[in-house]
Amino acid sequence: MALVVMKFGGSSVADSDKMKLVASRVIDKKKKGNKVVVVVSAPGDTTDDLITMSEKITSNPNPREMDMLLATGEQVSISLLAMTIQSQGENAIALTGPQAGIYADLDHSKARVTKIVPKRIFSFLDKGNIVIVAGFQGINPKGDIATLGRGGSDLTAVALAAAMKAEVCEIYTDVDGVYTTDPRVEKEARKIDLISYEEMLEMAGSGAQVMQARSIEVAMKYGIEIHVRSTFSGKDGTYIVSEEKIGRKKMEALMVSAVTFDKNQVKFSLIDVPDVPGIAAKVFGSLAKLGINVDMIIQSAALDKKNDISFTVSKADLKRTQSKIEELAKELKASSLSCDEHVAKVSVVGVGMKSHAGVASKMFEILAKNKINIEMISTSEIKVSCVVDEADLAKAVNELHKGFKLNKK
Amino acid sequence: MALVVMKFGGSSVADSDKMKLVASRVIDKKKKGNKVVVVVSAPGDTTDDLITMSEKITSNPNPREMDMLLATGEQVSISLLAMTIQSQGENAIALTGPQAGIYADLDHSKARVTKIVPKRIFSFLDKGNIVIVAGFQGINPKGDIATLGRGGSDLTAVALAAAMKAEVCEIYTDVDGVYTTDPRVEKEARKIDLISYEEMLEMAGSGAQVMQARSIEVAMKYGIEIHVRSTFSGKDGTYIVSEEKIGRKKMEALMVSAVTFDKNQVKFSLIDVPDVPGIAAKVFGSLAKLGINVDMIIQSAALDKKNDISFTVSKADLKRTQSKIEELAKELKASSLSCDEHVAKVSVVGVGMKSHAGVASKMFEILAKNKINIEMISTSEIKVSCVVDEADLAKAVNELHKGFKLNKK
Repeated sequence: MALVVMKFGGSSVADSDKMKLVASRVIDKKKKGNKVVVVVSAPGDTTDDLITMSEKITSNPNPREMDMLLATGEQVSISLLAMTIQSQGENAIALTGPQAGIYADLDHSKARVTKIVPKRIFSFLDKGNIVIVAGFQGINPKGDIATLGRGGSDLTAVALAAAMKAEVCEIYTDVDGVYTTDPRVEKEARKIDLISYEEMLEMAGSGAQVMQARSIEVAMKYGIEIHVRSTFSGKDGTYIVSEEKIGRKKMEALMVSAVTFDKNQVKFSLIDVPDVPGIAAKVFGSLAKLGINVDMIIQSAALDKKNDISFTVSKADLKRTQSKIEELAKELKASSLSCDEHVAKVSVVGVGMKSHAGVASKMFEILAKNKINIEMISTSEIKVSCVVDEADLAKAVNELHKGFKLNKK
Repeated sequence: MALVVMKFGGSSVADSDKMKLVASRVIDKKKKGNKVVVVVSAPGDTTDDLITMSEKITSNPNPREMDMLLATGEQVSISLLAMTIQSQGENAIALTGPQAGIYADLDHSKARVTKIVPKRIFSFLDKGNIVIVAGFQGINPKGDIATLGRGGSDLTAVALAAAMKAEVCEIYTDVDGVYTTDPRVEKEARKIDLISYEEMLEMAGSGAQVMQARSIEVAMKYGIEIHVRSTFSGKDGTYIVSEEKIGRKKMEALMVSAVTFDKNQVKFSLIDVPDVPGIAAKVFGSLAKLGINVDMIIQSAALDKKNDISFTVSKADLKRTQSKIEELAKELKASSLSCDEHVAKVSVVGVGMKSHAGVASKMFEILAKNKINIEMISTSEIKVSCVVDEADLAKAVNELHKGFKLNKK
């Protein structure tokens, strides 16, 4: 009897009809002889609605009470899904994160899972129940509800699968898997059958919104097989597994697995700052103190003891970055400061590039041939990213997808 | 430093503006030197909305999951109210029923409070917090959320006041106290300054919807002073206290404290059933087994070894009663069966009638003088109730209010 963890996102439980479809998928899985643990997110726009309620009261809510508020969304989902499954004649029980034995740390709104004690879940499974667990939440050492950050239901599912040694963790969503790029931008985008944790991590970090990055890290650490698939069809989706499982042959055949992009970027440039030690540390240290995540950084070669520093942040941090960087520009006597909202990041991702030299140069060549100017570059072992003008983005994605032959199996 | 429990109903926390008003009342109370515990219901129509969601799934939801679903409403209220108070510069903390140490029994949807362990509440109060507790909910021996039935937030407030030995339990509502009768029916209705637990209990049982009856029982048992007052004005409302506290003088002056009524009644009559032992037991035993609460009962004197039996139930139980009683009518060979939905119950309530003979006869006289036919009568030590035609109800209320001089202080 295999143990399967199934996770359904908010759009899959947005109304009673969708809830009934989810119930039938879950019951089906149990009838095939599996023990089934289901993790659900808050229905539809519930989380956003709750945030709006709090915004009417204060722009700076206490994180403890904010978590208590947001956790109600998943509690609504699990109660309703349990009722739906029960009304279809199967035994089911709903457990909040704390009831399911999910322990988290004190960092409200982005708590980490510290341990999972699945005793109660196992006991309900042994009695023949489908166990439905609220995603996104756990209990902290103070006995308070802590939420795990946006996309935290993925983390709940993967962490439960790891703690319970599940055979597979299925992530149900409204698309039917992970694609070589966004099908809305490139009509020849293909569904990927098999992808490694490392590639998924780089994709999550470079704009693909399939799964929360932290949950992929946990899956990788514990070797949990993830199956990303559609709630609305019975077809296989994308399996996320270790490089070993994918096998040498496949790895060597493909240099690049996917093209990803991120339009949610703003580029700042500080022009002519003094070329003395500690300037970069000062700039990026001040931003880090504000909790602003800097993505790409370029420091130009020094001319006349002056430097240019450019970096990108997410658009959500635009205003806070701007006011801090204006202050720093004055302090550092920069000759000018620029801010460009019309940039985008395009990346190619693939474990194949570990053994293939020349992926970066091929990428630059494809962009150059298409007269797309590269503003910034960053690379990792299995990813190359370029910042380009937002107007060139679609063309860049299309040409890279074709150039790296992602349209062909 | 006095300890005060303040309870706010759903209409008082229905939106962010009302929430801000509640916050200012609470902060005001604290600034006057009190320790403050606040109990809140779910905002506005939230509970009804959640019920509607469950009804789209099943007409017969599992009570455990139903409680888990409904409890989210109060969790939303306490989170938002804590944020509101915090944003006005005071320390506040929100606690769910389980976090507040409210223990309940296993009877989902109408659980009884079994014990209260207010250790955590006291510790937060000692640190200078306003403590906000979710009404209507507790934790049962299985570690599940249990709700306390409609109006259960009143019970939470009174039980907390009892367990914590609060000086007073203030019940905030959208009216400014308890009235001698419904001001919408009788324009000379007066606010009552002081009323006994016993009278409030009889009023709650005879149609007045000011407070949940169980919570008044608990207040009476522990001698908790209740103050029913308006959220929207600073004026004193109605104090509910023991007869002893009200004092002899006042008690002897007033025979009757209030006229109440209940339009939510249906009268059934079984005509010509055999006058043999056990018939009434059979009829009312069968209804009790279905959980149907029978209110008033009249069994006519036997003629020709035949009896008529009439009784009233609440309109919510109409259909279930009808199908059972049709079955019984056949079995008992009743000559006919009637069902009258156009009846209403009018009652006069007052501890004064303990020492005044003649309240019942005065009531009958007033009704007779106004040509209002009395269909059924029941009495308790401090209440007389009559069932009348619904069309005569307003007149009955007006004339009784005037006849017992309730319009005059």
